[in-house]
Parts: sequence; structure tokens; C-alpha cells
Amino acid sequence: MPTNRQILLDNRPEGEAVASNFKLVTTDTPALKDGEVLVRHHYLSLDPYMRGRMNESKSYAVPQPLGEVMIGGTVGEVVDSQHPKFKAGDQVVGMGGWQEYSVVDGNAPGMLRKVDTTHVPLSYYLGAVGMPGVTAWYGLTQIIEPKEGETVVVSAATGAVGSAYAALAKARGCRVVGIAGGPEKCKYAVDELGFDACIDYRQYPDVKTMAKALKDACPNGIDGYFENVGGYILDAVLLRTNAFARVAVCGMIAGYDGAPLPLQNPALILVNRLKVQGFIVSEHMELWPQALQELGTLVAQGKLKPRETIAQGIESAPEAFLGLLKGKNFGKQLVKLI
Amino acid sequence: MPTNRQILLDNRPEGEAVASNFKLVTTDTPALKDGEVLVRHHYLSLDPYMRGRMNESKSYAVPQPLGEVMIGGTVGEVVDSQHPKFKAGDQVVGMGGWQEYSVVDGNAPGMLRKVDTTHVPLSYYLGAVGMPGVTAWYGLTQIIEPKEGETVVVSAATGAVGSAYAALAKARGCRVVGIAGGPEKCKYAVDELGFDACIDYRQYPDVKTMAKALKDACPNGIDGYFENVGGYILDAVLLRTNAFARVAVCGMIAGYDGAPLPLQNPALILVNRLKVQGFIVSEHMELWPQALQELGTLVAQGKLKPRETIAQGIESAPEAFLGLLKGKNFGKQLVKLI
Repeated sequence: MPTNRQILLDNRPEGEAVASNFKLVTTDTPALKDGEVLVRHHYLSLDPYMRGRMNESKSYAVPQPLGEVMIGGTVGEVVDSQHPKFKAGDQVVGMGGWQEYSVVDGNAPGMLRKVDTTHVPLSYYLGAVGMPGVTAWYGLTQIIEPKEGETVVVSAATGAVGSAYAALAKARGCRVVGIAGGPEKCKYAVDELGFDACIDYRQYPDVKTMAKALKDACPNGIDGYFENVGGYILDAVLLRTNAFARVAVCGMIAGYDGAPLPLQNPALILVNRLKVQGFIVSEHMELWPQALQELGTLVAQGKLKPRETIAQGIESAPEAFLGLLKGKNFGKQLVKLI
Repeated sequence: MPTNRQILLDNRPEGEAVASNFKLVTTDTPALKDGEVLVRHHYLSLDPYMRGRMNESKSYAVPQPLGEVMIGGTVGEVVDSQHPKFKAGDQVVGMGGWQEYSVVDGNAPGMLRKVDTTHVPLSYYLGAVGMPGVTAWYGLTQIIEPKEGETVVVSAATGAVGSAYAALAKARGCRVVGIAGGPEKCKYAVDELGFDACIDYRQYPDVKTMAKALKDACPNGIDGYFENVGGYILDAVLLRTNAFARVAVCGMIAGYDGAPLPLQNPALILVNRLKVQGFIVSEHMELWPQALQELGTLVAQGKLKPRETIAQGIESAPEAFLGLLKGKNFGKQLVKLI
């Protein structure tokens, strides 16, 4: 049995999350029982939702228990199997957590899925053709429901969700405007990801200047907005919404650390007859096959070229995660474990 | 030609609206041209949306021009007609404004509608079987879409919208909880309007105490909320929403005077996967016949017994309107003009 290194949640953050909230331990992988599969993880996915789970308080997800392996999406290869559906060498995606190996019940529905890497690199199943991609797809197609020619905006534009959003929205004939941090990300958004424009929020650090930048980038107003961030950017976007605009609320990353983030002018919801809707993509599993199909096709056609930031080794996961929360990553944040 | 007394918007409010924003003038009604109808108003409707129109700034409605008759719904009787569709004695509903008479183009679609007062008193066409009733109907059936057994809440519970909302929600098998100002209104809501419970917001003047009162009144949480008020009551309601609750935003009366009213915790939209949607009922005219039919039936069956507060004479309209904005009315606020 191989040795397994794991990252546990050791204690909960008081305010901002810090590296000492986590603990690295080494264990042996247990012997497989009937029906079980041993997976060696090649990549671990780091995602903003994990910050919410670190809190004790009520969130949209059950809190991560203390002393247990941090939850997280993984891709990897079956190294041993006591289940007829899986054999050594199978490439799989699952929720293996922050560790190098996981033992999975092959009979549990949805826990382990074989994937085809002919046209889609394995790591993409954690990003563009995985949960983040489906997240973009759900918000865009099920809440924003854009019409051709409409202007749709997304924050965290160069992230895994934002890049998929751009490709999906362009495929629907929209003007797509991103918001990202720094000139390098903004240039990348326009040059490589297909955004029609991208606003560097560091240059527009308050509602007034951001609203002006949005006015310039969205001369016909905003019809749809995919919210990954929260805070003053949302306030500024609402000021530029057209009548009957739709806002899909997927993340409020700036609020996870417990700082109150009021919405300054909710009356705009009435004034502009907005629909503002929150969602969690894991509650809509019935739509994943349809979404993954479109996302995989966009990747195979070269229309969705997501960028990845890859940290090396399980021990680097906490710092990489804290960097993600501060926007230090560029594209999908992964940890390579082999 | 009869003499006509009118209330004009003389100047715009700076902060709170005051009586001196209005001016009473006396004119003669003009001679009718071909196709025109002269209506004597029996009742003028006073509604919160009028406050928004008094401002210069962008609102969901075009600002009321200075020096012109205040806009407003009216019911009355045709006294002279140069239009074949209308004759003296017809009872009609229209948008005659704050004046005793109006001259209406009988050909303009939707400007004047004959009504039947066999089962429904004339004044009700300004309330339960008029715009406020349809407003309740739209928010409840098109946005909240309640299922039997769900708990739905409404602020301004004893007003024209709130009372219709209660009857419509009870007809759908919901638990209906109101929020109103003062013990008299709350007792009336439960005894006469069919609310299962009613919370006196004066006893719960902050988010924390209101959230506690809502918890007691809504032991199974809140599935739908019809927002007439805004401010801390909305903050408290959001704290008690169930997953996938729907909030129909119809009014933000507390914010009309320009005071900023932030939403304290918009992250709840994500945490509870809420849908928060604003609407203006006049943009959905295609649904009015269906709504008016149900509302008229509820009145005829005695299941919707709205209360009215009636001021006498056009000169009383400004003070009655200012009182409405402060919640001094009890039920639908009307001005009787005959």
C-alpha cells in the first residue's frame, strides 16, 4: 500500500484564512475492500467555495469537519480496483480531496467517473470541462439566458469560470466584457479568451470609477452579469444594468472572510426590474451532461483555451489556496501531485 | 362646461415630500372634440409609486413634469361623450390624475375601461380589482409561484396590495404572514383579511428582533416574500428564507425620499439560492384580464374584503398622500371627489 500525504483542516479561520488552519499528515492507504477503487491523484482542484466550508457558520455547504481531509475535486488514475467497472489505468474524475490517493466506493453514484483524454487534457476535467465550466454554463444559460447581441459581463474573468463563460457567451452572439485584476490578465482575456473588452478593477477601486469604466466598455448597457466577487463591483454593475437584466450570483469571494459587504442600492432591483438569483451548480446535476458536452466541444474546437496555474506537490496546496482567495492565480488553480 | 379643480406638481421634493410641492388650481374643462369623453371622477387612487415620479432622477417611471396634473388612477362616470363607445352614465376606470374631471381620448387603447359594479363596488377598481390587486397577483403567481403548504410573507399587509395578496395566497393553500404597523392593523389582518399571523414592525424596530419575530411566525421558514417596503425588514426576511425562496420586489417605500437603504447581507442570495426579482405591473398588461378575473371572483365570494381609507375632496389629496407614505392609511387610500 502506498504512503498517502493529506492536508487536514486543523482549526477554523478567525477572519482571514491562514496557512496554520491546515495540517499536513502522512498515512498509509488502507487495503481495498470489495467494490472499492484506489485512485492516485494527478491534479487537485482549488476553488473559492472551499473557503465557505472552512467556517463553522451556516453557509450553502455543510462545514468541513475539523481533523478531516479537505474536500476537493481531483483527477487521476486508478491504480488498484476491487470493482468490476474500474481497472488499473482508467483515468477518472472525482472528489478525492486534498491528498495524494483516495479510496472510493465504486458503487456510490457520481463519486467516480471515467473520462476520455483524447481531445481534452485530464486536468481540464477540473476546470473548463468540469465543475467551473458547468458553473459558467448554468449561470449563463439557465439564469442570464442571453439573447444574441446582448452585453454580458463576468467578474474574475480569467479564472476557470470566467474563461468558460466567455466562450459560451461568444457562441451565443453576445458582447462579453470581463473584469479582472491587472493589465496582464486583462490583455490575456481579450487576446486569448475572446472577451470583447476587459476592465482592470485595480484601476477603478470604487463604485464611481468602476461604473464609468463599465459605461465605456458596455455602451449599450448590461443585460447579464455573472457575479463571482461581490462588493463594490456588483454595486457598479447594477448602476449600468438595462431594464430586465439578469444577475447570476455564484460567488461572493470578497465576503468569505466575514467582512460585511452590503449592497448599496438594492432599489435598483426594482428600478431596473432585475432578476438576481443565486445558485449552486452541484444542485443541478441533471444538467451536467448537456453542459459538459458543449464545453468539451468548445475545447476540442479550440474555442475555449483555458489557462492553468499549477502548484507542485500536496504540501503547496494551502499557500496556493490562500493565493487563489487573493486573486494571485491566473486561470484555473491546480495542484499537481505526481 | 363644469369647473375643474386640479392638483399640480409645483416643485420637486428635497428629501422628504411636503405639501408645498403641490399646488391647487381651478380651470374650466375644455369643450370636447370628436372622439373625446368627459369623465367626472368619483374616486382618485393614491399609491406609493407616485412618490418616485416626483423625483427628477431616473426611476422606473418617467418623472412627473412640473406644472402638470399629478398622474393617478381614477374611477368615475362619463358625463359627456363624443365617442360612440362611451355614453353619459357609463362607469369607467382610467388614469385621470389628481383632478375632478378629465377629458380622455376614447380611441387611445387602455386609457378608459368600462366596469361593472353589480358585484364589485366602483372604488374597488382602484384597489383590490385594480392595479394594486393585479400587483399582488403578479408578484405572487409570476415570481413567487408558491406551492401548497409554503409560507409566504408580505409587508404593508393591510394595504391594497397586501390584502389581495393574502386572499390569493390562501386560495393557493399557503401559510400567509403579514407585517404591518400597529396592533390595530395586525388584528385586522388576522381577523378580517385571512392572514395566519401578522407582525407589528413597531414592536421589532431592528433586524435582530424582527428576525426573531419572523422565526416565531414562520416556524417552517419563508418560501416567498413580497417586498413593499425595503430596509431592515427585507434584511430580516432574508435571514429567515428557506433554500430556493423567491422575493418579489414591488416597492421600496422607505427609500423614496432619497435615504440610502443598503441591503446588509446580499451573500444570503447565494447562501440560500434566492431569486430576487423586481417588477412593474404596468409592463405586463397581457396578464391583467386573468388577474382581474380571479380578484373579482374573490371579492364577489367575500374572500377578499379590502378596507379603504377615504379622504374627502381634491384639496385633501396632498396630505392624504403624505400620510400614505408614512403608513397612516389603513387599507387602500382613496380621495372621494363627489
